[in-house]
Amino acid sequence: MINFQTSPEQYHHWKLEIDGAVATLSMDVQEDETLNEGYKLKLNSYDLGVDIELADAIQRIRFEHPEVRVVVLTSLKPRIFCAGANIYMLGTSSHAFKVNFCKFTNETRCAIEDDSAHSGRRYIAALNGTASGGGYELAIACDEIYLVDDGNSAVSLPEVPLLGVLPGTGGLTRLVDKRKIRRDRADVFSTLAEGLKGKRAKDWGLIDDTFATSKFQDSVNAHVQELVSTKNDQQTPVGIKLNPINVELSSDALEYKYVRLSLHREQRYADLTIRGPEGRPEMSPEEIEQAGDIYWPLRAYRELDHALLHLRVNEPEIGLVCLRSEGEISNVIAVDKNLFTHKDHWLVREIILHMGRVLRRLDLTAKSFFSIIEPGSCFAGNLLELALASDRSYMLNDPDQKVEIMTSEFNTGALPMSNGLTRLQSRFLAEPGKIEEVLAHKDPFDTEAAEEAGLITFAPDDLDWEDEIRLAIEERTSLSPDALTGMEASLRFAGPETMDTKIYGRLTAWQNWIFQRPNAVGEHGALTNYGKPTKAQFDYKRT
Amino acid sequence: MINFQTSPEQYHHWKLEIDGAVATLSMDVQEDETLNEGYKLKLNSYDLGVDIELADAIQRIRFEHPEVRVVVLTSLKPRIFCAGANIYMLGTSSHAFKVNFCKFTNETRCAIEDDSAHSGRRYIAALNGTASGGGYELAIACDEIYLVDDGNSAVSLPEVPLLGVLPGTGGLTRLVDKRKIRRDRADVFSTLAEGLKGKRAKDWGLIDDTFATSKFQDSVNAHVQELVSTKNDQQTPVGIKLNPINVELSSDALEYKYVRLSLHREQRYADLTIRGPEGRPEMSPEEIEQAGDIYWPLRAYRELDHALLHLRVNEPEIGLVCLRSEGEISNVIAVDKNLFTHKDHWLVREIILHMGRVLRRLDLTAKSFFSIIEPGSCFAGNLLELALASDRSYMLNDPDQKVEIMTSEFNTGALPMSNGLTRLQSRFLAEPGKIEEVLAHKDPFDTEAAEEAGLITFAPDDLDWEDEIRLAIEERTSLSPDALTGMEASLRFAGPETMDTKIYGRLTAWQNWIFQRPNAVGEHGALTNYGKPTKAQFDYKRT
Repeated sequence: MINFQTSPEQYHHWKLEIDGAVATLSMDVQEDETLNEGYKLKLNSYDLGVDIELADAIQRIRFEHPEVRVVVLTSLKPRIFCAGANIYMLGTSSHAFKVNFCKFTNETRCAIEDDSAHSGRRYIAALNGTASGGGYELAIACDEIYLVDDGNSAVSLPEVPLLGVLPGTGGLTRLVDKRKIRRDRADVFSTLAEGLKGKRAKDWGLIDDTFATSKFQDSVNAHVQELVSTKNDQQTPVGIKLNPINVELSSDALEYKYVRLSLHREQRYADLTIRGPEGRPEMSPEEIEQAGDIYWPLRAYRELDHALLHLRVNEPEIGLVCLRSEGEISNVIAVDKNLFTHKDHWLVREIILHMGRVLRRLDLTAKSFFSIIEPGSCFAGNLLELALASDRSYMLNDPDQKVEIMTSEFNTGALPMSNGLTRLQSRFLAEPGKIEEVLAHKDPFDTEAAEEAGLITFAPDDLDWEDEIRLAIEERTSLSPDALTGMEASLRFAGPETMDTKIYGRLTAWQNWIFQRPNAVGEHGALTNYGKPTKAQFDYKRT
Repeated sequence: MINFQTSPEQYHHWKLEIDGAVATLSMDVQEDETLNEGYKLKLNSYDLGVDIELADAIQRIRFEHPEVRVVVLTSLKPRIFCAGANIYMLGTSSHAFKVNFCKFTNETRCAIEDDSAHSGRRYIAALNGTASGGGYELAIACDEIYLVDDGNSAVSLPEVPLLGVLPGTGGLTRLVDKRKIRRDRADVFSTLAEGLKGKRAKDWGLIDDTFATSKFQDSVNAHVQELVSTKNDQQTPVGIKLNPINVELSSDALEYKYVRLSLHREQRYADLTIRGPEGRPEMSPEEIEQAGDIYWPLRAYRELDHALLHLRVNEPEIGLVCLRSEGEISNVIAVDKNLFTHKDHWLVREIILHMGRVLRRLDLTAKSFFSIIEPGSCFAGNLLELALASDRSYMLNDPDQKVEIMTSEFNTGALPMSNGLTRLQSRFLAEPGKIEEVLAHKDPFDTEAAEEAGLITFAPDDLDWEDEIRLAIEERTSLSPDALTGMEASLRFAGPETMDTKIYGRLTAWQNWIFQRPNAVGEHGALTNYGKPTKAQFDYKRT
């Protein structure tokens, strides 16, 4: 079982140092500390374990060190920043693992960009040596890239020429869409195993600047200090501690404080229940800071995030997740109101951004989601997003029981999808007028009102309820899991596309295709033969 | 060898009837007239041969019957409109063929939408029976869909539930992006093998209306007449004849009038040379009509289109195409000027739209393209788009020889890419100011000016030229063809996405992934076992 929890004291591969407003994240991969057997993490190459630490570090900087304004990513190894994902790890991994590995590393890089865009932290890639493949892709997720000019160090994406696969962590998309590198130059760069150095890398826009070895550290430091000094007019907040997420594991369930995951492995589905907040306390920002990671919106969503990652990687045969909720709608709405009131406070902002990331992780999870809305549920405000994120929702229609859903300020834009739309905008592409209508409805919707408003998919009555849910589950889990993954990836993201959706849609889909082609993973494939005396032999038919 | 040329007299599967402003395209697939052996085209199911006729019919309506304002697609078979792509054909086809088949059918459907959007012809799908799978996808490419209400006929996308693959012809994307059907309803519809009928299909937005059997024909006719009568204020143009494209085939070349395709199969590349126009006649629209299909812009681009299709399907091992041109820049510019002057004339408009479609076919071709710009070439105006569409361009830098390129009005928006941008906009995403600069430059660019302006990739000098081109070709054709396909699909379409790019990027990539998964095409896969007594058995791991 892969464990997604860690903390700086436990890191094997990264050093996180905080010095005032500057955090330095130094990569120093221990080649024997691998997640699986059969490969060594040489030259600061990484496996999922290395990236779990990176994701943790970025999350902790945001919550535990809000005073940080600049994050410097660099390496403690001489002449090498990072050699990217470990090829032998990829070569020995199952297709499903490769795909999940790439998805997680992509989410980590998007989390860097989310921090930069919304919390204003500036990410600097200080490449004290070569950054190749995933190493350069990590750099390109940062705001600025500086490369040492030592006559040797280069940036490169050698996946196509050396491995017969794509740079799998957004590299191609970010080349042309983020750094807007001319497509013909991007083509040359992406087929050049040795990459580009110094002046040409700068001229082509692959890096922001290059400094001689003797001046590299000083030049980067001077620039970092400059960035920090222009931002020192704000009050320095004090972070909160992110404690480990407690989870009780049994053979077929994970029990957290606010989340319960029940696994029905025989039937290939799971129930994922989220409990709403327990009280309705109006809390000041200071009280929220004091509560820290036990505050419901942070704790519940951290648990939800953990459960989603667990489902993806450790429960591959679970094809369908039934989302359920338990609690008082009024409590959820009160929490939303409280958060919304203080949304400009640093911690509240981070909590809301975190909720957004977790919901996007759900949107991007290759499992079907059905929301089951019953008496005692609390799909309101931020939790209504779960129902809107679902592929379908079922709401009991029983005049004798109270079953309700409700909107809040949180459905108006605080928790956007990867395509930049709210989930209501995505839902009502055909009738944008409905969004205002739904949001203007200040009371809860009962089942008939919810159906009339277009907020739910089906509203079976009491007599049909059990059978209809059971049949829907059976039917869904009988279908081809591959076809469902492709279908959901196509239907969930209507409307505009962004760099993120291009990375998860277009680029990832092509990478997944290539990842199972004989030219990559067959006996004579490039990935299989990398580092061996044998050479790859391609079937040259273009597809 | 697959032949992409046909004409109405030769159609096996479609009847094209023109009655004033109304064209009726009736599908009546002959089950034994298949392109390959091993399957029968029952229930108006189709193979590539059926779609080649459809593409031809749409093209001919535009050029030969400009008087047509409404095109009705219907079927001559009772109770069935079209059952989609033939499953047994798909089951017995190679992966590469399936992919190329889907790409061509997608381009045909996009051509319907191109005609509707830019030439104002209205496409009506008159579903006199069930439209399933590709049958419904053909309908959804039309502007309006009417379904007979006979208690039986339905629209459906049964690919996911029955075949374990995706609707491969844009269906999922058009559901949520064109008809903007609510994503949860799209999810239900796309997993419901039997589809939806009558009122519910209408309520969910899958069709525009439904009429009882006895009233179906009259209701559709009345609506068509209504559409036609509101458009009868224009002068009725008279079409031109599209004669067969003459091509001389030898073992390693295709010779057309303006295009020459030389195949270097051993080295896995081809030279595709386009000859510019021969004179500089200023022609009036009437003279252009008289010239008809021998007019250079129409003839040359029809030939180019044919060569591209031939390369895709009949020469799969050719991985790289070197684009070359021969002729006088001034002649190309004169033709562009002439076309631009008369761009509102129906035939000139159709010719320009056709050039745009051919260039988009090139953008979407899974081969590498290098432009080779030498003395005697004429990459100017519309032909400059070939260089801009290339993955790279090489321009000889020799002060002793005249080597030039040049822009015209045709580089400002008449020939857009699938993403809605011009190729100059795509190229200069980082520096949009450069576009105006380049367009303001009214003289030809010599090699140094072209390089300075960012219009070419490399400018080797006379001494290096031969070696550099040879090495570039050798290097490109040595790389994994799969990785190149994915890389090019990612780098060619920076910037915004449209429904078209989503279909060719996101949806197609997922479909291609699924098309080679064991769950679809393995021994126990759904596609393999369709129609057999055995049942599909899935590996249920979600990826």
